[in-house]
Amino acid sequence: MKAFSKNQLQRYPVYLKFFKTLIEEGKKDVSSPFIARELGYSEEQIRKDLQAVSSEPGVPKKGRDLRRLIETLEEFLGYRDSTTAVLIGTGHLGRALLNYPNFADMGLEIVAAFDNDPTVIGEKIAGREVFPVERIENLLPRLNAHIAILTVPASAAQEVASSVIEAGARAIWNFAPVHLNVPTSIVVENVNLASSLAVLSHRLNAELNKE
Amino acid sequence: MKAFSKNQLQRYPVYLKFFKTLIEEGKKDVSSPFIARELGYSEEQIRKDLQAVSSEPGVPKKGRDLRRLIETLEEFLGYRDSTTAVLIGTGHLGRALLNYPNFADMGLEIVAAFDNDPTVIGEKIAGREVFPVERIENLLPRLNAHIAILTVPASAAQEVASSVIEAGARAIWNFAPVHLNVPTSIVVENVNLASSLAVLSHRLNAELNKE
Repeated sequence: MKAFSKNQLQRYPVYLKFFKTLIEEGKKDVSSPFIARELGYSEEQIRKDLQAVSSEPGVPKKGRDLRRLIETLEEFLGYRDSTTAVLIGTGHLGRALLNYPNFADMGLEIVAAFDNDPTVIGEKIAGREVFPVERIENLLPRLNAHIAILTVPASAAQEVASSVIEAGARAIWNFAPVHLNVPTSIVVENVNLASSLAVLSHRLNAELNKE
Repeated sequence: MKAFSKNQLQRYPVYLKFFKTLIEEGKKDVSSPFIARELGYSEEQIRKDLQAVSSEPGVPKKGRDLRRLIETLEEFLGYRDSTTAVLIGTGHLGRALLNYPNFADMGLEIVAAFDNDPTVIGEKIAGREVFPVERIENLLPRLNAHIAILTVPASAAQEVASSVIEAGARAIWNFAPVHLNVPTSIVVENVNLASSLAVLSHRLNAELNKE
């Protein structure tokens, strides 16, 4: 298996989205210099990224076939297979993710939600039933869910993480702003808004200090 | 001004959160080896990160004073000043962010929301009024908002970005899964769920293929 860096992996959905926009605009081919101009990556990086997933070379002066590129990227990103996930924590963010319309296109199917608040248990959010957290251990293996999406408060995240791993989850998409201690075989991907805001604030201050 | 890499900036909120947890547990000091064990970063990286924001050295075998570290990090991250922001797009994700309780502690104050749906205009979400998008140009300068949070659909993001920049926004926190073309003086920080999911899926597949 080829090694892909995190930054590189993060670029593929950006390419894919961009190529789909071009198709909608009626374009048929795309060249690396054009992608570089529009997305702000270097031409060299773009060539390297696309060569890593596609064996087909571009045609000089014309570029690469857009439909084939889209197919290749969707295949590479696993958008054509479906992976089953459950979501734990149906607060504002959890509900937002359950209502997010694009996950299905990305091959992510959230099949059930869990919460510890008795007033929401049994509710259906965007078609998915909310179960009590105590049922994770019993339901996760039956749902064959490999991914657990954690949208619980920071204070609960470690305990919930341990229980989904115990129940057989292999990957955690962690939206709680806290570091999780998990076995090395478990994949954790963090979406940390505080970290993203730190980058934004620092750059904004640098810009404002220039004046 | 010192140069900080994006990865480094992203770690500071993780340290801060961790140090606050330790204070709550009654601890007074923290050492780099202990942080390394708990957060999974290397000792060398931790020392470098902390030295970059604090001139105070650690005490051998005891480490650094937690209260002072927390103060330093909060100062560095701008959590003690308040930055004004507006949010555009009050769909599920926009509402989730308006209801997110921790932004105020991070020095981010969202003072108003905008949408183009007449049925939500005039509504109050978590205490903030929703204005029509046409009023961005007029209201942004009066609110003195430097940051625009974009939670609009991908198809609307570029147009909205251009209009908030026209109105004087200096930074865009972009949650729409699309690349924005903006002048180089404008700060853009993307939160792209598709990119995060790409990293998670790739690593999960690599783990499952080991079996």
